[in-house]
Amino acid sequence: LISIALDVSGGDLPYEERIKGALLSLQLDKELFIALVGNETFILPIVKSSFKIDPNRFKIVHTSESISMSDAPSRILKDKKNSSLSIATSLVKQKECQGIVSAGNTGAQMAAGLFQLGRLPSIDRPGLAITIPTETGFCVLIDAGANTDIKPKNLLDFARMGSQYCKTVYQIEKPKVALVNNGTEEEKGNILTKESFSILKKEISGFKGFIEGRDIMKGSVDVIVCDGFTGNIILKTIEGTASSIFSQIKKEISKSLTQKIGALVLRKTFSALKDKMDYRVYGGAPLLGINGISIVCHGSSDSLAIQNAILLASKMVKQKTIDSISHFS
Amino acid sequence: LISIALDVSGGDLPYEERIKGALLSLQLDKELFIALVGNETFILPIVKSSFKIDPNRFKIVHTSESISMSDAPSRILKDKKNSSLSIATSLVKQKECQGIVSAGNTGAQMAAGLFQLGRLPSIDRPGLAITIPTETGFCVLIDAGANTDIKPKNLLDFARMGSQYCKTVYQIEKPKVALVNNGTEEEKGNILTKESFSILKKEISGFKGFIEGRDIMKGSVDVIVCDGFTGNIILKTIEGTASSIFSQIKKEISKSLTQKIGALVLRKTFSALKDKMDYRVYGGAPLLGINGISIVCHGSSDSLAIQNAILLASKMVKQKTIDSISHFS
Repeated sequence: LISIALDVSGGDLPYEERIKGALLSLQLDKELFIALVGNETFILPIVKSSFKIDPNRFKIVHTSESISMSDAPSRILKDKKNSSLSIATSLVKQKECQGIVSAGNTGAQMAAGLFQLGRLPSIDRPGLAITIPTETGFCVLIDAGANTDIKPKNLLDFARMGSQYCKTVYQIEKPKVALVNNGTEEEKGNILTKESFSILKKEISGFKGFIEGRDIMKGSVDVIVCDGFTGNIILKTIEGTASSIFSQIKKEISKSLTQKIGALVLRKTFSALKDKMDYRVYGGAPLLGINGISIVCHGSSDSLAIQNAILLASKMVKQKTIDSISHFS
Repeated sequence: LISIALDVSGGDLPYEERIKGALLSLQLDKELFIALVGNETFILPIVKSSFKIDPNRFKIVHTSESISMSDAPSRILKDKKNSSLSIATSLVKQKECQGIVSAGNTGAQMAAGLFQLGRLPSIDRPGLAITIPTETGFCVLIDAGANTDIKPKNLLDFARMGSQYCKTVYQIEKPKVALVNNGTEEEKGNILTKESFSILKKEISGFKGFIEGRDIMKGSVDVIVCDGFTGNIILKTIEGTASSIFSQIKKEISKSLTQKIGALVLRKTFSALKDKMDYRVYGGAPLLGINGISIVCHGSSDSLAIQNAILLASKMVKQKTIDSISHFS
């Protein structure tokens, strides 16, 4: 059995969503065992009343302490040793579980990963690898926000880790890698990207050069590499632009009745598009470079997102993603 | 009369578009005089055949040399002293014109501005100020790509210049300013944004704090400040996301006949939205911090974009934007 620890206390939505996600994942992956880490007083009634699950396939690890979004990551390890996040992470440390999934405080999850599990030998900085939908399918963007100021060596690590992640989890044999830049010509860039270009060109066999912001959604590469500041701006700008366009379309449509009829007819189009852009399909983002599997979920993750994050953790165990990263970097 | 130099040779579209743009702007602004700088052999027949314009309101400044997109900015001043860009810029230097508009090589235009016109006394680095449409109207993003690696002092200059630009050109009395960051909390950021936060807070009266990528299109502030690497990524990510969404909507629509009918009905919506997002409305982006008016246009600028860029230059003359920047920074 593959055993995954779920931080039930972390997240914006009620406990039910995360527990439902866990139970759904058990139905889909028969090799799975889940440790529900959190307050038993809340977990037990939900498990008993709402779901019928084989008691041999999950257990509850009780703790009443949890981490809030406002807790400073640096103090959590000292002050909140009994938080659901710390305990879930220590289950991985003690080899009782093979991965952790959390929708709680991302900074705290990174700190817990770094200090409780440690880094892989050759990796200086872990990177958050998020899968985003593109016009042709999807791509992996790394780093999505774990590190703001970095060096070329870190971008090289991100490129290697992103490639191994694509190879093992998405079965892409030769992942194409590109470095985010303010132009595609070799002489364009800031100090970091200019210095990194020749290193990636030399070290990464699938390196296709620079990629500009306008081409990220086109889906021409599999792995998009950047520092975490830039990655955060890209992801949030995509999100903001998409939501702004949809809200403006709605506004324009509501201006007249004929538009409303048009909207009815087009409903299928919009819902197809929304499904395609649904972040929940990809569940969560692994923090690559940690000596263990740690999946970061969006704070507002619902049962579908949690289900897919757990399935991703399980797949990473089966495909030996962490071994493959430590072997190839 | 306000005299503007137009670099007729620079740009991806045929000469006709830029000349037409010039003549349209003359019709709209009766105080305007335009120097058409470029190859007379091409300009004369177009002016003679296609347009009827008072010969007292424009002149042709002939030069057969032009700058291509592949010319290195650093070598242009040495090797291409007679290019249309250099000559147009020198007209401003010699006070014969009060501003230059170009749709040619942006790097070359920056180099020409810096070396021929110089910087304003207190400004270390000029910034490209681009106006972008938002849900509620528009905002000015500075720097859109002139500088990749900068210091807090540069961000402070951008904030001041962007504010004066908004005040003088858009008549916004107290422009709201925000700094692009990977989070809105004060402790979030990279070294540059963290260091700059307290400086902007102290020095800029309209400073509203950090802004995230997802809120840029919302239109809650008037001036958005960032380094040119980040600015370039933001602009191109917005462009790429919008074009990707529109192309996916089209694809989904074409899948069935009812969808096609819906599309017909919705045509008005999409065209209203496209008009709203049309970059040509704002014409061009001034390079603020240069001792003179220099408007950078998109390479593919058509007559409407050129017309509006020239009108913008004229407005900056009338509103004394450059004086106001050198006074308040």
